[in-house]
Amino acid sequence: MTPQDTPTRPAYGVHSEVGRLRKVLVCAPGLAHRRLTPTNSDDLLFDDVMWVENAQRDHADFVDKMRERDVDVVELHDLLAQTVADPQARDWLLDRKITANEVGLGLLDDTRAFLESLEPRGLAEYLIGGLSTVDLPDEFRDGYVALARESTGAREYLMPPLPNTLYTRDTTCWLYGGLTFNPLYWPARHDETLLMKAIYTFHPDYRGSTVWWGDPELDWGQATFEGGDIMPVGNGVVLMGMSERTSRQAITQVAAALFAQGAAEHVIVAGMPRLRSAMHLDTVFTFADRDLVTLYPTIMDKVHTFSLRPADKAPGVELTDEGSRPFVDVVAKALGLPALRVVETGGDVYASERQQWDSGNNAVALEPGVVFTYDRNTQTNALLREAGVEVITIVGAELGRGRGGGHCMTCPIVRDPVDF
Amino acid sequence: MTPQDTPTRPAYGVHSEVGRLRKVLVCAPGLAHRRLTPTNSDDLLFDDVMWVENAQRDHADFVDKMRERDVDVVELHDLLAQTVADPQARDWLLDRKITANEVGLGLLDDTRAFLESLEPRGLAEYLIGGLSTVDLPDEFRDGYVALARESTGAREYLMPPLPNTLYTRDTTCWLYGGLTFNPLYWPARHDETLLMKAIYTFHPDYRGSTVWWGDPELDWGQATFEGGDIMPVGNGVVLMGMSERTSRQAITQVAAALFAQGAAEHVIVAGMPRLRSAMHLDTVFTFADRDLVTLYPTIMDKVHTFSLRPADKAPGVELTDEGSRPFVDVVAKALGLPALRVVETGGDVYASERQQWDSGNNAVALEPGVVFTYDRNTQTNALLREAGVEVITIVGAELGRGRGGGHCMTCPIVRDPVDF
Amino acid sequence: MTPQDTPTRPAYGVHSEVGRLRKVLVCAPGLAHRRLTPTNSDDLLFDDVMWVENAQRDHADFVDKMRERDVDVVELHDLLAQTVADPQARDWLLDRKITANEVGLGLLDDTRAFLESLEPRGLAEYLIGGLSTVDLPDEFRDGYVALARESTGAREYLMPPLPNTLYTRDTTCWLYGGLTFNPLYWPARHDETLLMKAIYTFHPDYRGSTVWWGDPELDWGQATFEGGDIMPVGNGVVLMGMSERTSRQAITQVAAALFAQGAAEHVIVAGMPRLRSAMHLDTVFTFADRDLVTLYPTIMDKVHTFSLRPADKAPGVELTDEGSRPFVDVVAKALGLPALRVVETGGDVYASERQQWDSGNNAVALEPGVVFTYDRNTQTNALLREAGVEVITIVGAELGRGRGGGHCMTCPIVRDPVDF
Amino acid sequence: MTPQDTPTRPAYGVHSEVGRLRKVLVCAPGLAHRRLTPTNSDDLLFDDVMWVENAQRDHADFVDKMRERDVDVVELHDLLAQTVADPQARDWLLDRKITANEVGLGLLDDTRAFLESLEPRGLAEYLIGGLSTVDLPDEFRDGYVALARESTGAREYLMPPLPNTLYTRDTTCWLYGGLTFNPLYWPARHDETLLMKAIYTFHPDYRGSTVWWGDPELDWGQATFEGGDIMPVGNGVVLMGMSERTSRQAITQVAAALFAQGAAEHVIVAGMPRLRSAMHLDTVFTFADRDLVTLYPTIMDKVHTFSLRPADKAPGVELTDEGSRPFVDVVAKALGLPALRVVETGGDVYASERQQWDSGNNAVALEPGVVFTYDRNTQTNALLREAGVEVITIVGAELGRGRGGGHCMTCPIVRDPVDF
Repeated sequence: MTPQDTPTRPAYGVHSEVGRLRKVLVCAPGLAHRRLTPTNSDDLLFDDVMWVENAQRDHADFVDKMRERDVDVVELHDLLAQTVADPQARDWLLDRKITANEVGLGLLDDTRAFLESLEPRGLAEYLIGGLSTVDLPDEFRDGYVALARESTGAREYLMPPLPNTLYTRDTTCWLYGGLTFNPLYWPARHDETLLMKAIYTFHPDYRGSTVWWGDPELDWGQATFEGGDIMPVGNGVVLMGMSERTSRQAITQVAAALFAQGAAEHVIVAGMPRLRSAMHLDTVFTFADRDLVTLYPTIMDKVHTFSLRPADKAPGVELTDEGSRPFVDVVAKALGLPALRVVETGGDVYASERQQWDSGNNAVALEPGVVFTYDRNTQTNALLREAGVEVITIVGAELGRGRGGGHCMTCPIVRDPVDF
Repeated sequence: MTPQDTPTRPAYGVHSEVGRLRKVLVCAPGLAHRRLTPTNSDDLLFDDVMWVENAQRDHADFVDKMRERDVDVVELHDLLAQTVADPQARDWLLDRKITANEVGLGLLDDTRAFLESLEPRGLAEYLIGGLSTVDLPDEFRDGYVALARESTGAREYLMPPLPNTLYTRDTTCWLYGGLTFNPLYWPARHDETLLMKAIYTFHPDYRGSTVWWGDPELDWGQATFEGGDIMPVGNGVVLMGMSERTSRQAITQVAAALFAQGAAEHVIVAGMPRLRSAMHLDTVFTFADRDLVTLYPTIMDKVHTFSLRPADKAPGVELTDEGSRPFVDVVAKALGLPALRVVETGGDVYASERQQWDSGNNAVALEPGVVFTYDRNTQTNALLREAGVEVITIVGAELGRGRGGGHCMTCPIVRDPVDF
Repeated sequence: MTPQDTPTRPAYGVHSEVGRLRKVLVCAPGLAHRRLTPTNSDDLLFDDVMWVENAQRDHADFVDKMRERDVDVVELHDLLAQTVADPQARDWLLDRKITANEVGLGLLDDTRAFLESLEPRGLAEYLIGGLSTVDLPDEFRDGYVALARESTGAREYLMPPLPNTLYTRDTTCWLYGGLTFNPLYWPARHDETLLMKAIYTFHPDYRGSTVWWGDPELDWGQATFEGGDIMPVGNGVVLMGMSERTSRQAITQVAAALFAQGAAEHVIVAGMPRLRSAMHLDTVFTFADRDLVTLYPTIMDKVHTFSLRPADKAPGVELTDEGSRPFVDVVAKALGLPALRVVETGGDVYASERQQWDSGNNAVALEPGVVFTYDRNTQTNALLREAGVEVITIVGAELGRGRGGGHCMTCPIVRDPVDF
Repeated sequence: MTPQDTPTRPAYGVHSEVGRLRKVLVCAPGLAHRRLTPTNSDDLLFDDVMWVENAQRDHADFVDKMRERDVDVVELHDLLAQTVADPQARDWLLDRKITANEVGLGLLDDTRAFLESLEPRGLAEYLIGGLSTVDLPDEFRDGYVALARESTGAREYLMPPLPNTLYTRDTTCWLYGGLTFNPLYWPARHDETLLMKAIYTFHPDYRGSTVWWGDPELDWGQATFEGGDIMPVGNGVVLMGMSERTSRQAITQVAAALFAQGAAEHVIVAGMPRLRSAMHLDTVFTFADRDLVTLYPTIMDKVHTFSLRPADKAPGVELTDEGSRPFVDVVAKALGLPALRVVETGGDVYASERQQWDSGNNAVALEPGVVFTYDRNTQTNALLREAGVEVITIVGAELGRGRGGGHCMTCPIVRDPVDF
């Protein structure tokens, strides 16, 4: 791996939600999840602690199943290790992570010296897994460690753990031929995007990619944007859930950027109700085939839909309130389909609520009509199969504890278009 | 009031916690508190809704009592109105508030046009009280208002309300002859410091002040700092509570900045236990006389104390772990006193917990031995009086609902030193 | 006061919500509220701590204003002291309170001996205010006190405090000529009803009253019933809110008991939505005049209404689902009125939510068109006055912190009917 | 199975925590767990929803492993089906379950008729799994079902689900030669004990057992008692955790009952700190061998220990405050051991907190030195093995979601003594 350009790499881009998946980014569970405890999991935005070894096994199995189907799966620790093998990249990242604002005065030199003493793989582990004061070897510790120990919450860390890297979907979005660097809602997740910028700036396989919008080194205020809400469904259309996590301030900016650069023609905004279970659009709505979606009606029935389209005058975006038109109808029409076929969350009132909670609607497609979902959502999976979908299961006992499924755990980098 | 310089104004500076208070900044309750409801008060960081008219009456009474004692009381709405009367200041603030990240595309021009149409006083009201979509007159509304209405929480606002401006203590700290612009812990409070920067940049009475540290236009990450934790007690000493809100990352930077500029010689860090009721140091510990403090022993007994002093080598700060030495002993010695007299929160186990909660230890001194506290903490007030302190009461029925007392509601600008 | 019968006392009974109020039971704030702290208030079902002295002052003022209007106001501490002055009543209560299940083995004899050593007034104070281990004088303490101190929550008490006695409305209901002893929802409140049974069993002014239903010495399981949900509106009609606190299991039993005893002809059930702010029907709906109600539309619009009427066959009750008919229409028709006039909670979207929270709709009538409400709900009060209602205000700064207003704090014993 | 006596059955009794386990009661996951959803799991006292089919598989595997080691495992659904096959037993239970207080007037006859139409197995399923209004066939439904549907929380049920029956440990305790019927802390669990009383009253294998204390048909007030806190360790000693769930009011009564009946000579009370993770003593302390315990030091270090011993005078119990003596030392001495060997929760500060949370210390012994624990607590399991313990694992991915392990899921009925 060398830092010079590799001009022959194929063009990256995601042209649909269900076209052939060719290249995808995942992140294996690891050190960050070993930091999770019942008392800190709230701060780190995880619902429960997980058995990390088994989560790793189940994640590796998911990756294997994708590779068996000829998907090029890249893993974040690997990419990051390859990236920081370049001293320029390593310095760029450490200049931004090892600062007085994050590490604290009195610990800067020792922390940086320790991190620079590591091999690239070890450094990547700590960049994702976090660096605790107890990780510093004795020769790198002085009195300020005692001060850090008295500090509260994530501040005990010299670099905080980033367990939500598991959900690579959120941090960057490939929308057709370019990508966005997403400002995530929770400050505890901001550095996830910084790691991605390092990769796209220095890694020879990724640098030079087209960036539509976003920069983790800027402050985006209320303009937060998470990939779990975003779906480039094809036909120049992008779906965007407007949720607690993804704001109108970001949606309108991204739409304007896409329109200005000719990257899309229609953004359909799903105004989500304000419910914990409706965190991201993809927790209640995903595609399983070119004209087939699985959705949780209890929430999707309450969506208020808007359309954004290019406009000549500033801000370059024209808004249409779709009023009482069902979201699925607006989407179908935009795709040129007469209607979308719908598979609702399966089972009785108890089971469907449980399955939505267990990411039952969070399918990710390998190709049209072939999806991955968690094994535990047996009733929704059965309904998908009855609808003709090939369902490949992921063991969800551990991976599901952070409330994300296959769609959340994958960031497609190359996906083919589909015909409508 | 005109924007040219007033070269004869007295030097500002706070040289103790109990010396004669000569000039102080407060902020009256108002529009921001009318926005508070049971469902949004959590987001806006307030414990309960208040009866705004009565809170205003009680706050005005507090101000009157200070003025009767010859304190020059300045009020934030007034200062801000005077500031934005200068078109340059108004533009500077609106350039930073009316952005795509905050207001959202599609609403920028109308929102700015509406705000520019206002008199300075009206503009100041909205800058502090927040601007809701319903505040926009019809001629300034278009379809994007519907999109904003579907958004969640504070994002329904075009400018969010800032009800915690009531606690002027937190935003800026005068520490001896200069001040800090504090990066507050909660993102929902960040713009409070921006308003202060506008005042200190443009208002003729304030511009040109010495700034030791801080800038609300920069991202400070984990380095958060709130005035409720900070006390310039005299003798070159500054107390700093290390709490959820005020981090070691900020404390060490401010200490280094003070030392480098010769502004202080000793920072005493109170490592607070991780409890809701120990939000700021001044919620459990304040001065009532030159050698007399009132404190809540349940929490103060658990404080772990550190000292920071100037050092020649980087980072310019030397740390001493005070180990098991009681905080009050470290403070007394630093002030050259044989000991501090202590008035604990009054009453039995139930009453003392209630009074701490009701800001019973949150006294603010007018001069040595004369303090303001809430009327409701009758037992602690009685103990202070028995100790020879003159206690002037503030009606706390409404003002106390945000969990802050007289110390929190005042930002001293000029206070005399005391002898030790 | 002597225990023999007083045959000439007027017949008790409540024949409407707004007819002339002649006799009413209240309970002054006191020792129980001095026990409240931020850490135990949840267990004791109070939203916040209060300044007890001021709450007492404001409550006394409320009582005075009722007495000025010739209402016979009786107070629970007084009634209970008069009751336990009778040794038979005292023994009856202590036999039920000083048990191994409540006080604990090893503390029974000392606790009972201490309580028996008290004057009736002192005993009544502890029965309502609770008895803590610290209240036991030294001569009544032994080693078991140490065990009690290690116990958690309310179990530290030998008799738990009953701060919700402030809300006399809930515990018993006079429904026309008889009363119910209500099984309250929270176990922490059960003993409130036991105190009422002692009064109605032994106090000469109350014994011999007709009891329609209920007995605090029995276990009622899911059949819980709270007076805040119950309104005998006249014309043989009783309104019953079906809420978290008042269950269908109780409502149907009380309806059957009333019908079987000829006490009522129609029970209208308001199926309340499952929201914290909709605790009791009277927190969102009360009468201010014979045909005028004040209500909070956000919640009342979601009520599902049922009617219960006498039936010949078991269980003696016939159910009608009123479907989509508005609750106010069903009530109006049952009272023989063409319609009810409605005063909604006042102010904009923020203010109306705040006022409902602050008991803005919790009016209690002195006579038709004359009500008591809290002073702080200025906008709803203004609307009531515009509608021709005389509004007398209660100071709510402290009393309102338990989330109950004038209706909650009063248990009418004699109220005249009104004509419809 | 017939209801006549089986005089030859072996005497039941549990004489230690680690002696040979010969007979044990468990309860398989089932219908009750299918009722759990994210919105009702709090009401039903479960931490998370589970994948019921897999939980059943893992539970069956646990049972198989016990049977392979010659333990006679009986299952609650089976026992209850055998019990209600006796019409007298069925009537006894339905008389107590199908009441106006629980089912509600208007639904009594239909509900009872439906339940009586079922086979014993089906009836047992609903007794444990709960009966929802949707379970009633059309011929058993009338208008009152609509009323029930509008009711909140557990009141929508005609019989509430009892998912915590999974933890058979809590409901009854065999303490040496007799048992206790435990009044459980949460009202939602009370009926679990009623089911056990039906079995011990009517089932031929169980009736005639000695009952030391308790009766689910009585109201025990604050005297709550849960088997997870109780351990008959041998040598006439019983350990009792005094926790949120198990009160001093119950502990002293049970001690007095045991002493009065000569069943024990020493009760050691572990006063637990008030923490969520210290729910029961067996969540932080269990035996793995005759002189070996596994414990979570973070909590056990804070235990305050008391001893109760028989006394001649009332209440028949003498209390000793063990002061600062460590709990393990008091236990060792009572067993005549020089000391207890201790295996602490394994791993670093993060891992040990996680493992305690995941029931890492909740071992149940098959015989001295042979225990069952969850597979996921790999580090604690490794330490136990290093200490010479044979550790057999239970798959905990689903079963552990209710926060209970092997000790919680087993109620020993026959267990041999051990020598000390």
